[in-house]
Amino acid sequence: RDCHVLPMKRSQPPWKVPVDTETAVLCLYNSLTRKKEPFVPKTGRKVLWYSCGPTVYDASHMGHARSYICFDILRRVLQGYFNYDIFYVMNITDIDDKIIQRARRNFLFSQYRNRNLSATDVTSDVTSAMKTFDAKFEKTTDPDKKEMMRKTKVRVSEALKSLEQTQTDAAKDHLLESACDPLSAWLDGKHGAELSDHSIFSSLTQHWEREFHQDMAALNVLPADALTRVSEYVPEIIAYVEKIIANGYGYKSKGSVYFDCAKFDSSPDHSYAKLVPEAVGNLEALAEGEGELSVSDDRLKEKRNEKDFALWKASKPGEPEWDSPWGKGRPGWHIECSVMCCDLLGSVIDIHTGGVDLKFPHHDNEIAQAEACYGHDQWVNYFLHSGHLTIEGCKMSKSLKNFITIKEALKRYSSRQLRFAFLLHTWNATLDYSVNTMQEAEQVEKVFNEFFLTAKDLLRNQGTENEAFVKWGPTDKDLNSSFLSKKSSVHEALCDSVDTVAALAHMRELVKEANIYISACRQSNHQPNLGLIKAIAVYLTDILKIFGAISEDTLLGFPVSTGNASAASVEAVAGPFVSALACFRDEVRAVARKEKVNEILKTCDALRDDVLPELGVRLEDVGQVTAIKFVDKAILMKEREREREAVEEKRKAKEASQKIQAEKQAAKEAKRRIPPGDLFRRDEGSKYSEFDEQGIPTQDGAGKKITDSQRKKMRKMYQQQEKLYAEYQKEKSQETSA
Amino acid sequence: RDCHVLPMKRSQPPWKVPVDTETAVLCLYNSLTRKKEPFVPKTGRKVLWYSCGPTVYDASHMGHARSYICFDILRRVLQGYFNYDIFYVMNITDIDDKIIQRARRNFLFSQYRNRNLSATDVTSDVTSAMKTFDAKFEKTTDPDKKEMMRKTKVRVSEALKSLEQTQTDAAKDHLLESACDPLSAWLDGKHGAELSDHSIFSSLTQHWEREFHQDMAALNVLPADALTRVSEYVPEIIAYVEKIIANGYGYKSKGSVYFDCAKFDSSPDHSYAKLVPEAVGNLEALAEGEGELSVSDDRLKEKRNEKDFALWKASKPGEPEWDSPWGKGRPGWHIECSVMCCDLLGSVIDIHTGGVDLKFPHHDNEIAQAEACYGHDQWVNYFLHSGHLTIEGCKMSKSLKNFITIKEALKRYSSRQLRFAFLLHTWNATLDYSVNTMQEAEQVEKVFNEFFLTAKDLLRNQGTENEAFVKWGPTDKDLNSSFLSKKSSVHEALCDSVDTVAALAHMRELVKEANIYISACRQSNHQPNLGLIKAIAVYLTDILKIFGAISEDTLLGFPVSTGNASAASVEAVAGPFVSALACFRDEVRAVARKEKVNEILKTCDALRDDVLPELGVRLEDVGQVTAIKFVDKAILMKEREREREAVEEKRKAKEASQKIQAEKQAAKEAKRRIPPGDLFRRDEGSKYSEFDEQGIPTQDGAGKKITDSQRKKMRKMYQQQEKLYAEYQKEKSQETSA
Repeated sequence: RDCHVLPMKRSQPPWKVPVDTETAVLCLYNSLTRKKEPFVPKTGRKVLWYSCGPTVYDASHMGHARSYICFDILRRVLQGYFNYDIFYVMNITDIDDKIIQRARRNFLFSQYRNRNLSATDVTSDVTSAMKTFDAKFEKTTDPDKKEMMRKTKVRVSEALKSLEQTQTDAAKDHLLESACDPLSAWLDGKHGAELSDHSIFSSLTQHWEREFHQDMAALNVLPADALTRVSEYVPEIIAYVEKIIANGYGYKSKGSVYFDCAKFDSSPDHSYAKLVPEAVGNLEALAEGEGELSVSDDRLKEKRNEKDFALWKASKPGEPEWDSPWGKGRPGWHIECSVMCCDLLGSVIDIHTGGVDLKFPHHDNEIAQAEACYGHDQWVNYFLHSGHLTIEGCKMSKSLKNFITIKEALKRYSSRQLRFAFLLHTWNATLDYSVNTMQEAEQVEKVFNEFFLTAKDLLRNQGTENEAFVKWGPTDKDLNSSFLSKKSSVHEALCDSVDTVAALAHMRELVKEANIYISACRQSNHQPNLGLIKAIAVYLTDILKIFGAISEDTLLGFPVSTGNASAASVEAVAGPFVSALACFRDEVRAVARKEKVNEILKTCDALRDDVLPELGVRLEDVGQVTAIKFVDKAILMKEREREREAVEEKRKAKEASQKIQAEKQAAKEAKRRIPPGDLFRRDEGSKYSEFDEQGIPTQDGAGKKITDSQRKKMRKMYQQQEKLYAEYQKEKSQETSA
Repeated sequence: RDCHVLPMKRSQPPWKVPVDTETAVLCLYNSLTRKKEPFVPKTGRKVLWYSCGPTVYDASHMGHARSYICFDILRRVLQGYFNYDIFYVMNITDIDDKIIQRARRNFLFSQYRNRNLSATDVTSDVTSAMKTFDAKFEKTTDPDKKEMMRKTKVRVSEALKSLEQTQTDAAKDHLLESACDPLSAWLDGKHGAELSDHSIFSSLTQHWEREFHQDMAALNVLPADALTRVSEYVPEIIAYVEKIIANGYGYKSKGSVYFDCAKFDSSPDHSYAKLVPEAVGNLEALAEGEGELSVSDDRLKEKRNEKDFALWKASKPGEPEWDSPWGKGRPGWHIECSVMCCDLLGSVIDIHTGGVDLKFPHHDNEIAQAEACYGHDQWVNYFLHSGHLTIEGCKMSKSLKNFITIKEALKRYSSRQLRFAFLLHTWNATLDYSVNTMQEAEQVEKVFNEFFLTAKDLLRNQGTENEAFVKWGPTDKDLNSSFLSKKSSVHEALCDSVDTVAALAHMRELVKEANIYISACRQSNHQPNLGLIKAIAVYLTDILKIFGAISEDTLLGFPVSTGNASAASVEAVAGPFVSALACFRDEVRAVARKEKVNEILKTCDALRDDVLPELGVRLEDVGQVTAIKFVDKAILMKEREREREAVEEKRKAKEASQKIQAEKQAAKEAKRRIPPGDLFRRDEGSKYSEFDEQGIPTQDGAGKKITDSQRKKMRKMYQQQEKLYAEYQKEKSQETSA
């Protein structure tokens, strides 16, 4: 046996850094280059993102869903999958020519209807309105629009005839309904200019903004981190426009301010229409961007060049207005986005999103404005545009009113089915909302759901903790390696400009393989690997959550355990009831205080201190409003226990101090009852052995003589005692005589 | 006006790729280099991870918690935060010398006890056992171990005396308990070799494996993706050992197989003890690695070099055994990990984790085995070791039995508090489990919890959808930019070898800033930015979830009920809160009635009639106690509507009846004012045509004579009218005279 210690190596050998084989990096299709570019945020992992929001004057439709669901998917994937720290800002356009027209017409029509005019008067007014309408009809060239107008004409003419024959109120109402559009327009033409109350406009925008938020919530679209409203940004807009003018790219004309496109484009530092340079000169698109109230010949004449667009519009009577250095007016459409975006995100942003139809002129003008203001030449690093939406193969257009509102779509399909339909189309491709599309979405939902149901069924019979783990055989290993490779494929698909179509295809492949594996297990009567099945189901669930196809209640903070029900549900379910209770208590308490009903105040305290803690609720009477906090019952009980202990300790401390006080008092009392002559004798046999005639010691216990200075002190004590004793004697004699 | 089309640019200008400023990449402290290394997985984002699991022969203690919670945090952060696709394998050591000893001794002791021997026999056996024990005591040098043995000796000697004196069954039982360890060892020495049934060993390991899984679940430690048990891997182990022998690094000796360390280390391709080269030659550590049943002098003599370790151990009688090319035996300790790891993860893995005390010889031997088998020289790319655990500053050691089991710790502290204690220590630093440590953990938990409670309280009063978004002012922007920068700091901390201590410090800073912001809002009576508060709370929740400090039920697949909580659960969950509310209201109402505080009574009514129906609750003030009924809100609304209608109908009916009454009264009054002579004349021209002198009709309207019987009736009516009219005349004259 070779037993001597071998000279082995005594230091760590070199270690080789593994070779990085990861090839996929996140790329996004960038409208600014029209290709996929690697995504690099401006600063670290922070992503500043601006998204064009809705103009709130009507119900949101599937076109809105197309954009907002797409961006929600992009945002969720960048945040939830790629772990970027996103700050997402969206605007609400609540000042706009369409809003002005719609609000005035709604207002005037409703006012007209309420006047309840005679059949003759209504007939006469509708006839006048139709003359104006006919003139507009003649000028209309768009065949779809023309067809729609023709239908209106037929409907009105029939309603007029019917009213003439019957003269009933019902026929009059029917005429008003049929002629609503022409009549509203006619009334607006006559009286629109008389309206000046801002609330006519704001009540419309507030209504439709609320509806928009509700629609988005129903579609499981996350709310923006910050929401900006044009009406709240007028001072900032004015300052921004002033800066553009100062930089030489804006000019004032008859109370309006325009952007000088030619001058901007001719600057070596800038380019006008970076997104769609081909569209420059598309006057129709430009006019639509300017707004129907802002494209009169007079207005056109104010511009140096017909390509210029309004930064600030002088308001005519009947149009909402704000003071400005250029007179009373309102912001142009494009300026709001540049201003509000810069206010919250600074001068350069990472991502700007919007519908494809906003590319020109809206987004190109936004870019021009921001660059003109800051003097840089790359305001937005990644401009992402959602694809078009068609309805059964046809273009969806606002003017045609062939749009399907989100509420209508949600009556037919679930929010999840709509989400699947969108996930099954690349975000920047055209999506056809059709029966076929939705059937495919329903089918995909079913594939996943059936797998989840199977997995849950298997997992319900998991057995003991040990049985949950069985040794892996070849089929388990095969499924697992397929699982790992599918995860890589999904990762690559998401890196490829968030290709959810490919990602879903890989996920469905995975489901298929898992199903085959489960069937094989069943046929061979062999227990499937439950851990693996669960891991696959959890992974698919997680990705579908990231895609927004599974919505979950965001549970904030630590769950509160109150027995069986899960914390989230306790708080969610009981919350409104506890709010009602706290509110009721506040009211009662206020009155009881005012009226000095102490009994009720005590009841209020008991509710807070005794009843609610038992239920896991802590009420905090701070400030005006009572704060409600759902806390673990055990913790509340501990808190109460501690409070009680503190009270008890205080009580004990007080008791102890009282006792000490009483003892001191008793000692004092006992002392003054001692005759002065006995004062030092009490200690006899210990401290002192001899005394003089007064009773002052002369010799200590050890036989040593008391010094003079000591005796001096003692004599003082003797004199004090004389006084005390005299007082005592006096009191005693008084008591006896009493 | 310049109207010609300017020659603007017609192609997209160049776009600049943003500069990547992201500097932090994930680094991990690698025991193979003893420094932090950038983490690069072998293949894409796939991470193959092997973690050393427990030897299951006793309860898991805080030392286990130290390792498994640490690795759980690392795993969750790499998976949940850095989004790696991890395949996590852990083993269960269920063949081991400690298991063999413990199982045999438990079995023999229990069998002995069941024999129920006489006091004399027990005394005699214990006396014999103590002789063996004394001999072992003499040889023991470790002072702690020796002290523990001395205590046992004292306890046994007292119990022996007591039994001698009393001769009771209780004293006998007490002796058996006191002498359990020495007696078990003595019995094992006498009869251990007779035991051969595998179930003696497997029932012990199965019990403690189950307990381990339960402890881990209680600590919110995720289960491994795959769990491997040595007992299920014997054939693979044999094949692996054969390969090592074939490669020249293993040799057979007397039915055992040993690893040839010197030969391995002398190979230019390999290094023995890569982790702790300094420890080579530490024979004590090596002996502990070999196991108590495998370190006899005979065994030592079988080895070529005392540094060699067993790959396969020949089993002696009483030790579980499996067939092998070298005779009946069982696997050595170190070989299992190399084999099971390679079986599921292949020949090279990304991460290997284990407790710091396993570095040498266990992990170094694992590495040597795997490299000897595959012929490569980097089996593990990142070897991560959790730090030591001390108890109140002292070393925790199994032999000392000063360990605190996980179950004991969980009786004192919640799983979350323990998790915070671990998060507050770097995973590879020493953690002192002490009152101080736990107080800090409780404090940190409280800081987060109070913030969550405040946030939830604020969010309960969010207002309408539109009101949830208010314009951002400077303080909102400041808090947000601080939020974004804290997120970056947390990211950097996690990149820095998953530094949860720093990450938590940044998160607490964020809480502090948010609290300051909220206080400032309250003081200035200004609504805090709820979206921002929510975003911060969601972020903190998410990170704490990733850290495992918030456990959630993994909801698989699509939620079943997409609507609101089901009615049953509402009633179950909200019931106690509504009861408290009703009770409170009853008390308040009783006092308010007594004291006649009408304002409070009205508030009580409003709660019943307006507030609670909106929440689907019907309060019924019947009898002494108020009845509470959970009813569909729609139904309650309908009920309220009907009640209102009923009240209205009643009012209308009353009004109608009053009107009739009034009319009747008026008719009566009118009638008595008619002079008797005019009574029938009123109808002149219709009913009657001729009258007598009194005014009683003689002929009807058609000229027909009135019959006598008719005239008789009429005369009666005339007389009644005479009376009425007289009364009227009298009243009238009285009024006039009055």
